[in-house]
Amino acid sequence: AMAPGIGGFGGLYPFGDSYLVAGTDGVGTKLKLAFEMSKHDTIGIDLVAMSVNDIVTSGAKPMFFLDYFATSHLDVDIAEQVIKGIVEGCRQSDCALLGGETAEMPDFYAPGEYDLSGFAVGSVKKDAVIDGSRIAAGDAVVGLPSTGVHSNGFSLVRKILAKSGRSLSDELPGAGHSPLTIGHALLAPTKIYVEQVLDIIAKGGVKGIAHITGGGFTDNIPRVFPEGLAAEVRVGSWTVPPIFKWLKEAGNVEEAEMFRTFNMGIGMVLIMEQMAAEQILKGDEPAFLLGQVINGEGVVYK
Amino acid sequence: AMAPGIGGFGGLYPFGDSYLVAGTDGVGTKLKLAFEMSKHDTIGIDLVAMSVNDIVTSGAKPMFFLDYFATSHLDVDIAEQVIKGIVEGCRQSDCALLGGETAEMPDFYAPGEYDLSGFAVGSVKKDAVIDGSRIAAGDAVVGLPSTGVHSNGFSLVRKILAKSGRSLSDELPGAGHSPLTIGHALLAPTKIYVEQVLDIIAKGGVKGIAHITGGGFTDNIPRVFPEGLAAEVRVGSWTVPPIFKWLKEAGNVEEAEMFRTFNMGIGMVLIMEQMAAEQILKGDEPAFLLGQVINGEGVVYK
Repeated sequence: AMAPGIGGFGGLYPFGDSYLVAGTDGVGTKLKLAFEMSKHDTIGIDLVAMSVNDIVTSGAKPMFFLDYFATSHLDVDIAEQVIKGIVEGCRQSDCALLGGETAEMPDFYAPGEYDLSGFAVGSVKKDAVIDGSRIAAGDAVVGLPSTGVHSNGFSLVRKILAKSGRSLSDELPGAGHSPLTIGHALLAPTKIYVEQVLDIIAKGGVKGIAHITGGGFTDNIPRVFPEGLAAEVRVGSWTVPPIFKWLKEAGNVEEAEMFRTFNMGIGMVLIMEQMAAEQILKGDEPAFLLGQVINGEGVVYK
Repeated sequence: AMAPGIGGFGGLYPFGDSYLVAGTDGVGTKLKLAFEMSKHDTIGIDLVAMSVNDIVTSGAKPMFFLDYFATSHLDVDIAEQVIKGIVEGCRQSDCALLGGETAEMPDFYAPGEYDLSGFAVGSVKKDAVIDGSRIAAGDAVVGLPSTGVHSNGFSLVRKILAKSGRSLSDELPGAGHSPLTIGHALLAPTKIYVEQVLDIIAKGGVKGIAHITGGGFTDNIPRVFPEGLAAEVRVGSWTVPPIFKWLKEAGNVEEAEMFRTFNMGIGMVLIMEQMAAEQILKGDEPAFLLGQVINGEGVVYK
């Protein structure tokens, strides 16, 4: 009764003629950067993003969100900043902040630190659920741009930072006309794809959607693919943001590891009929044709 | 569109002819006792209990649960024990474990420690929602027994323990024929009231339900009461478990603070029509008549 959704990004629960789709996630060690930069007003956007971006992959419209905020001793100023971000994330994803829990747990967290988890529920009509089952060879692989590292890979980011000798307040090399610090580039809030993805779905022809989180293209795209099919991705078919170039160089990270850890500039991948993809690629919102579905396994980089 | 449920224990979201009811909670510093006793197989029951006991107060049947488990470095043995408890909690509350997130966050938690949060979603038909609005003077106040301290008040518990000089492996005074240690009494898993409460609701006459968590009777019962009405509670009308007597004596805690912090042996309070209450009090499952609804404010102890 739980299927479809095995291997998908949100859990599906049948309810009348709909599925309720639920997702939970935290923001991981990206929090450490927020602590170091004493900037707490966007990490709540990341928190909402991680869960709602998961559930929208089923075609579900997010309905409500709940948060859990845990700290040793409540700092009201910090908590207000965090909540401000959560409220903004809920606004961007058009869902209600239905509740939350603030837990004061002495001796659990270092002074000034906290952890966050979030939980989102959406719904989709059973006959409209997107589960990848209709994906076929020849379908288009379309990518939607990310705003940066989003909320995954920060354990590696922190290692690279330490190794590089750079500080968070140093300017990011290669940022060009819009100079920004490494810290601000890394802390940029995760893009919330809800509105854009639901719009694309409404136009028809979407067969599968992958939220590119920890594991990058390599691990996340195959989660929605039927057996025997692979995604052929042309490296160079989209713009890789400067932060990834810097991380690769500063950390001397192999390309394969970059693609297995980071989103590389694409936070959401849609598998679509070619005709439908053409319409999206001509639209106002930026989208890239990354490649196509072929016979095979996993992701084939070209 | 969010009402009813303001001041209630779960957030309500309208969906067709139903409300979806969602709750989130952790288990707080009870975790520290699990760490000290190296006993991780029931804390997951507490986790599920805290959320499902909240949502059943609206008359909602829990449908699914998701967990968030965060630790610095994953210890698979500990994680398996924790999940075992979560699975048992879901079994007891007849809800699906729909998903979860295991977050490895280096430098967040002390070695061997972790934090947990849980999210439950249930549903109730709009015309069957229980929100306290029909509570009237003369209604019965019925209590369902707890299994002990449940998952609240552990900051005070830990202070009392430190002050008392007792260890968790000392025998609990007053435990009588079934000797047990202070540690095991404190770590007893939170009772899951879902089946019992839904059975009582099905028999009719239930007007309001309060889950007795942090804040005890004093803060939780009034959350479901209309303006101008109070709960008159006869102290002595139920059996207070030995653990509360020991906590009161060992910590030299005032009665008022005990009732504002602990459940005192009653984990769930139902406000019912007198005739309906009589049937429940005669039933097989233990229940106590604590008192009645009177004109006034808050909880009046007698």
